[in-house]
Amino acid sequence: MKFGGTSVANIDRLTAVAAKVKAEVLRGNKVAVVVSAMSGVTNDLVALANEAGSSYDTNEYDAVVATGEQATSGLLSLCLQKIGVPARSWQGWQIPILTDENHGKARIIDIDTSELKASLLSNIVCVIAGFQGLSPQKRITTLGRGGSDTTAVALAAALSASRCDIYTDVDGVYTSDPRIVTRAKKLDKITYEEMLEMASLGAKVLQTRSVELAMNNRVPLQVLSSFNEGVGSDLLGTQVVAEEEIVEQEIVSGVTYSRDEAKITLLQVPDRPGVAAAIFGPLSDANVNVDMIVQNISENGSATDLTFTVPRSELAKALEVLEACKNDLGFIASVSDDNVVKLSVVGVGMRSHAGVANRMFATLAEHNINILVISTSEIKISVLVAEEFTELALRALHTAYGLDAS
Amino acid sequence: MKFGGTSVANIDRLTAVAAKVKAEVLRGNKVAVVVSAMSGVTNDLVALANEAGSSYDTNEYDAVVATGEQATSGLLSLCLQKIGVPARSWQGWQIPILTDENHGKARIIDIDTSELKASLLSNIVCVIAGFQGLSPQKRITTLGRGGSDTTAVALAAALSASRCDIYTDVDGVYTSDPRIVTRAKKLDKITYEEMLEMASLGAKVLQTRSVELAMNNRVPLQVLSSFNEGVGSDLLGTQVVAEEEIVEQEIVSGVTYSRDEAKITLLQVPDRPGVAAAIFGPLSDANVNVDMIVQNISENGSATDLTFTVPRSELAKALEVLEACKNDLGFIASVSDDNVVKLSVVGVGMRSHAGVANRMFATLAEHNINILVISTSEIKISVLVAEEFTELALRALHTAYGLDAS
Repeated sequence: MKFGGTSVANIDRLTAVAAKVKAEVLRGNKVAVVVSAMSGVTNDLVALANEAGSSYDTNEYDAVVATGEQATSGLLSLCLQKIGVPARSWQGWQIPILTDENHGKARIIDIDTSELKASLLSNIVCVIAGFQGLSPQKRITTLGRGGSDTTAVALAAALSASRCDIYTDVDGVYTSDPRIVTRAKKLDKITYEEMLEMASLGAKVLQTRSVELAMNNRVPLQVLSSFNEGVGSDLLGTQVVAEEEIVEQEIVSGVTYSRDEAKITLLQVPDRPGVAAAIFGPLSDANVNVDMIVQNISENGSATDLTFTVPRSELAKALEVLEACKNDLGFIASVSDDNVVKLSVVGVGMRSHAGVANRMFATLAEHNINILVISTSEIKISVLVAEEFTELALRALHTAYGLDAS
Repeated sequence: MKFGGTSVANIDRLTAVAAKVKAEVLRGNKVAVVVSAMSGVTNDLVALANEAGSSYDTNEYDAVVATGEQATSGLLSLCLQKIGVPARSWQGWQIPILTDENHGKARIIDIDTSELKASLLSNIVCVIAGFQGLSPQKRITTLGRGGSDTTAVALAAALSASRCDIYTDVDGVYTSDPRIVTRAKKLDKITYEEMLEMASLGAKVLQTRSVELAMNNRVPLQVLSSFNEGVGSDLLGTQVVAEEEIVEQEIVSGVTYSRDEAKITLLQVPDRPGVAAAIFGPLSDANVNVDMIVQNISENGSATDLTFTVPRSELAKALEVLEACKNDLGFIASVSDDNVVKLSVVGVGMRSHAGVANRMFATLAEHNINILVISTSEIKISVLVAEEFTELALRALHTAYGLDAS
């Protein structure tokens, strides 16, 4: 069971969490719990570290910010004991959860489960501080934002857990953003692959790396609300499972959007071998993440227009980099637009069904929405459109793929 | 160098602390720094633990409250690095500082200094989280309130440090409380024994246990203000040293007072062997700390009045305990008074000087202050008087012993 920051925001919330853990214990389950820092605490610690000068030493940054989860693990253990559930806290270094030495974004290398298993067999609930581990140099490391999800999945894999329940402030994964698409419905099941696409497309329910880890280790994940009554299999959350476990697969599972997009077009790029590398090399060197790329067919065989997208926050930097090598690259001008949105339909079913992309294009055309860029993967189609169409397009696509709640 | 809570209250204060550490380093000293939690942080953590139910498990209480010092040690390391001083943080478990398993008030058993010494020899400042250690069960322990002083002294002893400088929010040890006795003056030197009496008599400059530890290990202590300019030997703080190091010893070093007192008199206690044990046994069992005791000479040889003091906060409990065994003890009635204050004069010089006690009694008599109870030790005379005389008596005694600043 993993509980995020809003689920452990104060002692009242921790008391509610303890009740959920107790219910699982009373069902005869052996439970390991992973906790985040109380909401707001990590931000405060990060602000202090930045004020002190965090850029100087990520070792110390980690020593500071890891304290938030440590406190929560002790507090939840107390709340459990108060209602008669034997429990103890475990810090990353106590287990230990061994990581590499990439402080601030460390990767888990190994988890020694011997002591945790002994504790579970003695019917003592293990309350584990998420987000942290121990480096080969015996320093405290952190796994980066959302790292507690990764701790939970890695532990579930190491302990061969029957389930890994991620309790959050939403009650599952939806077919679209319910704030925009009021007829969005909660999915009972979704595949790892789809969840991975949804997470990387901006659905903030689970951290991308934790989904990857769950997929690679076939950890049965479940997304649940910590604010609802009930626990585990009683709660109607969303299960994240392997494709073969979904009997009746919908063709499309969700329609998502991302506003963190900006479009750049380079006009009249010379059409010769190596020009793409010459453009995207410098952007990559500057840590600008290029996403969708379209190269128009050149009309006269000598020059072409090249369009691609970058995160909106990196647009200025990207234009600067491009301007600096304009003469080398030989394009005439660059045109940019950050009033764009990326819409995506996701579904493993599109592997075996034709016409999925075409339905998207037809639906947008019906509503006179112009498509600026298209990109596809095996289980996802994304289009870039003007931002003003976000709500209209999202609702239209949701209806067109038969996702509306009845 | 040890810095308390108000000295590390925010990043500005930590920056000032870093400057003091740097100055010591520039003098060619190898420096280990012990830090407390930022002021207020420990209280907040204690409140959370109590709300969660800290009485259930002191292991978890310690895991929660130890996080405050951990954060400070990382933050100060960052501040040091920012001004070009190589530094790293050390948690109690990393060194390790081994303690017994008395969570919440653990005692240090051993400090492994091998890694710290290697770090110091590489000219890396060690920034140590105070107040905490590691139990034989590999759990986090805390040393109790003021424990960071103890960490500092124990480390200084283990590292055979030349000095242990305790930076606080006052600039030294005074002959009396300057808020009451405006002519109180700062002492240049004071003996361990005197400091121990002053600390246990309510002068809050140093934690009693840390003074004991310093005395037993002959650690040269120094009390300094972290709010003044300058560092170490440039600052005119108070040195706490062995008696033989003070050439011209004053007879009396200080006049202190404690308002946390209450007086109980048991009337007509039967005068027979074992009656004292019968009275103080139950009080001790109830954890009531009895201080001054006076037994009047019995007039008729069969019954006597017995007077003693207890901490004011424990008066109600003490009376309850006594009432419960009134019949067994055979006294007629109990009378109590909590409008009392304990005044003490402290000085190793009184060992070799007669008339010190008499000057105290004469001075109080001159001012018509009635003495309720007297108790003495080798280097201290304490009297109990009505609380209303506190200021008058304190100033009069300060003058009588020649302590007034010129």
